[in-house]
Order: sequence, then C-alpha cells, then structure tokens
Amino acid sequence: MSRDRQLHLGAFMRPVGIHTAWWRYPGGYPDANFNFEHLTHFARRLEAAKFDAFFMADHLAVMNMPVAALRRSATVTSFDPLTLLPALAALTSRIGLIATASTTYNEPYHVARKFASLDHISKGRAGWNLVTSGNPDEALNFGRDAHLDHAVRYARAREFYDVVTGLWDSWADDAFLMDPESGLFFDPDKLHVLDHTGEFLKVKGPLNVARPVQGWPVIVQAGASEAGKQIAAATAEMVFGASPTLEAAQAYYADVKGRMPALGRDPDHLKILPGALVILGETEAEAQAKRARLDDLVHPDSGLANLSVRLGVDASGFDLDAPLPEIPETNASKSSQAQLLDYARRTGATVRDLARKVGAYAGLHFVGTPAQVADRMEEWLDGRGCDGFNVMFPFVPEGLDDVVDTLVPELQRRGLFRRDYAGTTLRDHLGLPRPPNRFFASQATGRA
Amino acid sequence: MSRDRQLHLGAFMRPVGIHTAWWRYPGGYPDANFNFEHLTHFARRLEAAKFDAFFMADHLAVMNMPVAALRRSATVTSFDPLTLLPALAALTSRIGLIATASTTYNEPYHVARKFASLDHISKGRAGWNLVTSGNPDEALNFGRDAHLDHAVRYARAREFYDVVTGLWDSWADDAFLMDPESGLFFDPDKLHVLDHTGEFLKVKGPLNVARPVQGWPVIVQAGASEAGKQIAAATAEMVFGASPTLEAAQAYYADVKGRMPALGRDPDHLKILPGALVILGETEAEAQAKRARLDDLVHPDSGLANLSVRLGVDASGFDLDAPLPEIPETNASKSSQAQLLDYARRTGATVRDLARKVGAYAGLHFVGTPAQVADRMEEWLDGRGCDGFNVMFPFVPEGLDDVVDTLVPELQRRGLFRRDYAGTTLRDHLGLPRPPNRFFASQATGRA
Repeated sequence: MSRDRQLHLGAFMRPVGIHTAWWRYPGGYPDANFNFEHLTHFARRLEAAKFDAFFMADHLAVMNMPVAALRRSATVTSFDPLTLLPALAALTSRIGLIATASTTYNEPYHVARKFASLDHISKGRAGWNLVTSGNPDEALNFGRDAHLDHAVRYARAREFYDVVTGLWDSWADDAFLMDPESGLFFDPDKLHVLDHTGEFLKVKGPLNVARPVQGWPVIVQAGASEAGKQIAAATAEMVFGASPTLEAAQAYYADVKGRMPALGRDPDHLKILPGALVILGETEAEAQAKRARLDDLVHPDSGLANLSVRLGVDASGFDLDAPLPEIPETNASKSSQAQLLDYARRTGATVRDLARKVGAYAGLHFVGTPAQVADRMEEWLDGRGCDGFNVMFPFVPEGLDDVVDTLVPELQRRGLFRRDYAGTTLRDHLGLPRPPNRFFASQATGRA
Repeated sequence: MSRDRQLHLGAFMRPVGIHTAWWRYPGGYPDANFNFEHLTHFARRLEAAKFDAFFMADHLAVMNMPVAALRRSATVTSFDPLTLLPALAALTSRIGLIATASTTYNEPYHVARKFASLDHISKGRAGWNLVTSGNPDEALNFGRDAHLDHAVRYARAREFYDVVTGLWDSWADDAFLMDPESGLFFDPDKLHVLDHTGEFLKVKGPLNVARPVQGWPVIVQAGASEAGKQIAAATAEMVFGASPTLEAAQAYYADVKGRMPALGRDPDHLKILPGALVILGETEAEAQAKRARLDDLVHPDSGLANLSVRLGVDASGFDLDAPLPEIPETNASKSSQAQLLDYARRTGATVRDLARKVGAYAGLHFVGTPAQVADRMEEWLDGRGCDGFNVMFPFVPEGLDDVVDTLVPELQRRGLFRRDYAGTTLRDHLGLPRPPNRFFASQATGRA
C-alpha cells in the first residue's frame, strides 16, 4: 500500500547520540562519534533502509561547559562535517549528505565552494544546514571577544544566503564546452560575475566550481525564533527544529508554511522534519526500560552543564532543590531558552528536575514498540505536524539497528515510507524542485 | 639493489596538467580536472606505483586573466581540495594526500580542524601546503579591495602556522579515556587551551578534534623568495618550488637546508621535491614530438595571459615582436617574476617568445626515454639538487600512465624508488619524525 504523503526520514548523526549518556550505554561504541569505520557502517545501513539523508550538525568550538561536565562529554572530539561527508559520499551512492556550516564565522566563498564540490562529488546529494552560531565560545576561536548579537547574526545570515546561492549560479548549466578541437573550455556568455556589495559582505565572484548538480544543494534550517521562522519561510527547503507536542508542531507547521505564499513560495517546497529521539523495544515496557537505563547513566555534572547551555547562563551554582531563579534574556538560542523557561514556569520544577530533564534529553521523543512509534509518526504526518522526522538515536549501534530493522519495515508495511529510492539526488528524495539559475533564465526548466 | 638515499615522488594534480594545453591533447580527458571518477582512478594508479603523495594545489578565485584566455583555461572549474581529498582518502589506503590552504583568506581554527579531520579519516596521510595567496583576484572574493602586501602576508603566515600547530597540540595523544564505567570521556590534565593573541590572530582553543594521527599533518611549502626560504627553513617538511637548472637547485638546496641548524632543525627533516613536468617516449624523438605536439596546442591568447600572471601586469597590449618593456616590481609572487625577467634579460627574447615559453610551461621539465629521465633524476638526487620530485603530467591519462608504467619501474630497477610502502603514514613515506606535542613533554617520543 502506498499513500499520497509519505514520511521523509533524516538521520541526525552529530553527535551520533543526542542523549548525554549515549556513549556509556552497555554494548555500545563509546568512540562512535569519532570513528570513521563506525560512521561509514551507519551511513550504509541508513542508505540500505532508504533514509533521505545523513545529517551532521556542527560546532566551531568545544562546547561551553565547566570542565566537570566537559570531561563527560563525547562531543569534544568530532570530525569536521565538510571533511567527513565527502569521505562518506565516496562510500555510498544514494543517501543525502547534510552538513551544518555557520554563516557567522565563515566566508561565503568558502561555503559555496565546499558545498558545490560536495554536490558534484556525491552526484547531487548535498544539503547545507545554514545556522548562525549559537555557542558563545565560537566567537573566541575567530578573533572576537564576544558573540555577535542575535539580530546581527540573522541579518548577516540572510545576506550570506544570497551570496552563496548567487555564487552557485555563477555558471549556466551548459556553460562548459570542453571542446579540444576549438580549444574553447567554456562559453563566456554563460558566466556571471556576482559582484556583491552588501551590509556585511563584499564578494566579487565568480565561483571556481561549475553549478552544482542539484542547481543548489538543499537548504536546511532549524530556526524557531521569530527571525528564524521568517528566514526559513523565505529560504529553507528542510527545517528540523522540533516542537515538544503535536499541537505545538501543528501551529509551527501552519505558521511557517503559511508565510510562504506571500514570499512567492509553494509550501510544498519546504519539508518540516522535526528532530525526534526514537527508543524502541519489543514491548513498551522494554523500550521504557532502555530509556530509564540510559537516563540513569547521566551524571549530575552533565545535567547542570546542559542546563547552563540551554539557559545561556552558568547554572552550576544554582540551588538544586529550589525552583529556577529569574533568568535574564541572553544572546543564546532564544527558542531553546524560552521553551525551557516556559516548562519550568508551568511545572514548578526544581533545578535538579530541570538538570535531569535536559541532561537526559528534553526534546521530542518517541518511546515504544515499532507499531506504537509508527502510530505516533503517522499521527504527526496526517495531522500536518510534520513531513517526516530527523531521527536521533539513543545509542549506537543498537538504537540505530532497532530503527532500521524494526521501525522502518513497519513504516514500509503501512505505506508510510519508501521501499526504494525513486531518484538519485537529495532533491529527488525530498520531492524538491531544482532551483532555476537566477542569472540564466533559459535554465529555469531544470530536472525538477 | 637499494640505495642510501632514494627519491621521494609526489604527483602534482591540480590542475591535473600544468601545461596550458593539457586538456586538448588527442586521446585525453578534457574534463579530467573536474571528474571525480578520473581523479580516483589516477590516485589509485599512483598508489599502486607507490608514490609518496597526491598533491592538490588551490586558488580561491577563477584565475585572473582576460576572458579571451580564460575561456581556454581548464582550471576554471575545480574541486575544493579539502573536499576532494577526504573522498579520495576513503578510496585509497596508503598514498599521502596534500592540499593547499591559504593563510591569507582563511581562519586558523577552520584550517586546523579540516586537516586534523583529514588526517584521522586517512589514518595519517594528510599534508598541508601552507601558502599565502598569490592570485590578486582572491582578495576580491573575501571582502577586500586589494591584495595584502607581500610582507604582511608572510608575517601573517608565520603566526598562522604557530596557531594551527598549537591547536593540533590541544590534546595529549592519550587524552581520551572513553571509559563507559567511570563516565569519564577524557582526562582534563591532558587538554591544553592555546589562548593565542598575536599581531594578526586571536584564537582561544582548544581544537574540537583529537591530536592528528601524525601529530601534525606534514607541512608543505613552495616559497622561493627570501621570506619564503626563511619560513620554509623554520617550518616546512616538504618544499616543492622548482629551480630551472641543477646548479640553481643545488644552490637552493644548500641555502634552505643550511639555514636549518641555526633554527634548531635537522636538515633531513625537510624534503625538497621540485615540481617537474615529465614527458616520456620510447625514443627521445618520440618524447620530443609529444612535447612539440602539446606546445602547438597553446593558443596565443593563453600565452599572453600566462605572461601577465607571471609578470603581475597586464601583458595583453604588449608589442608581440618587441623585447619586454620595463616591468615595475609588483605584489605578485616575487620569485616567479624575477626568474622570468632574468631569462628575458639574458636571452633578449621578444614578448611573443616569452608568451609561447610561459604558455607552453616554462618550468623544470624532463623530456626523453625512461632511462634518460631516470638519469636526470638520479643526477639531481645524487648532486644534492633535491630529495625527489613532485611530478607534473603533460596530459592525462597517457602522460600519467607513461610515468607509472615506464619511469617508475626504471627507477625501481635502479634502486632509486621504493617497490612497496614501508609504513602507513605520509610521514613514514617521507622519512619524517612525528612532532612532539609542545604542551605535553612526555609525548615527545612518538613513533618517529
């Protein structure tokens, strides 16, 4: 059985486990986040299961937390995503490959080149998760004393997007003649020099890479703040920010997609795939037991550190048994902070409760049997809460194997997920059109 | 037969042919510079031939030349080296992988991360060709109106090197415990925070990647100017700048290696591998005929453009049949300009002569039978003109196949080149020690 709308599934792989204690789970690979053979194995398993994409987030610093917590974090050594994904591109053939790259501490010429190169090497499987840097310690690694202000980061991100996509359009798709007889390598009429000068960026161009196979790599975003939602509606083709409940997700889905027609975009050209931690068991009790076992492995030092990151203030001195003190608005990721403050207000949770909650992973999660989790996913899809999910694994390899071996077949049986890839590019998998080249109108009819 | 000193051989692969007309040669691959399957095939052939390294140069712009010449250039679309090499790392197991990265238009944190990641993914095969940007058009892609001054570029490069190597030393080799039982992922006593503040750069650290397999990726440089030679003597482990004659090469070799003891370095810890174009035939006449055929494919537009780049001034209006006019000292690569001006003065060549000469590739070249070329290489090695060569191919695949199938076996018969790899890392191939970690003295005894 097949359906009109099917789920899209990404795999959120950096870190390989979002839960603080993933690397301590019995029988797991403690080094999985930094082991190329393991990551290759995971990418191949996910490709065999027909996942849309393998998604590597990024941070341009060791995460900012006290050393007591830091020394318990498996994220301190990780591959640069744009170095890892080309290697995985060479060892896979279909799965999409999404990397995070910050618009705050990068140059657009570098970003445009690297994603264009990855898209060519992977034959059209690249996606760019466009972020503004949310980790304040990143500023210190790039010559600054403090983080750029939230509004400035978003304004720069918007201009950065224009420059990168403009550089991708430097060459018409049929610019290259490569004709040994005449000695003409390209047609100069099919080369465009961007010559951009804006508020934040000045970039001449052209890019020294042919137009990407996909026209542009797929544009991915997380933004859930007001500024984040607006830039997503204007530019994103996949969004992975997660709402904690179906109701909140439905509101988010309607909000962001509702902004698109006024911006001249078809709402179908943005796929909303919330991140979701998935823990499976043969019975619901078994799944819950796995979760409890994992949560028990979170050290209190780690919980307080996660709380500090989420709040944007140092929580290590807070009274564990008191309610959360007043928190000033900070320059941290606003949506993440607001969500947690709202939860604290609603529930009257103590600092200890909150530390355990965020230490153990406080975001959207589905825990149950394959049928139960499939029910929830179907409910979210049909309820227009999402177009699919970016699945996060509780531990590896077991948690990933559970999804591939038990959940995916259940989704396929229900006609909720593909049994094979219909195309070869990430745009094909996601059902996204190939963008026309803005400088060469005759190119508008791509293979979309 | 084996010898005390053997040749080291790198393959200079971007562009895959250094000669302007390489892509027009009959029977060749016109798209080889931008075809991942071809590049993979070449890397594997070179690995089977036991080459030390596969070397990708880089430019952060389309080369600056008039469109009449540019449209004849095969370099306008090329992969970003640090995106290509991870993909090739996944498909090879022994050959070294060297990428150029500019210190002028990059951030040291990005450069340190990417090379550290490549070194881990390739299991110790990465090399960094540290350059200052020589192409004036690069400035325009990175927010500047004009190129940084030569002296400033070199001063920044020196500081950049200190920061990148300092970031590579962020973690002791045995920092990572990854102990699920205790929940300790690393030992905080084995983490060093660089906290660098210098004239050009401010970088906190630590790097979020474990210390590279090789300690540091191999440091490569080309510098032939006075500033370039001094920084090479202080920091380089491979140099590939080419002198046009054995006498000049001997002087260069003695000069750079002679500076090293005063800098506290063993001259054996720098390998000098000049770039050399190699054209082979079964007879000398056949090799010369290949060369003439290739030179005949250079269009005059390309010759004048190459001349402009070499001189750092626009030569397109020069009288073709007059001698070279007076050329002001420019901000271009000084050594390259000086060499050509010297040649023009010595020979009284016309502009047309010079355009043909540089269009057709004016640098070091060996043209002849395998035995003749092996003789020349042996002479250079034994005469202390070099420690080996970075071979440049006149066209592909034929020119590369000739080297692998006829020259390498000849060198092996003479005991001048290895028949198999003795180790697994690029440092192993080059006979270079593993650098001690400057912040963790107990690590000084690496596997060098």
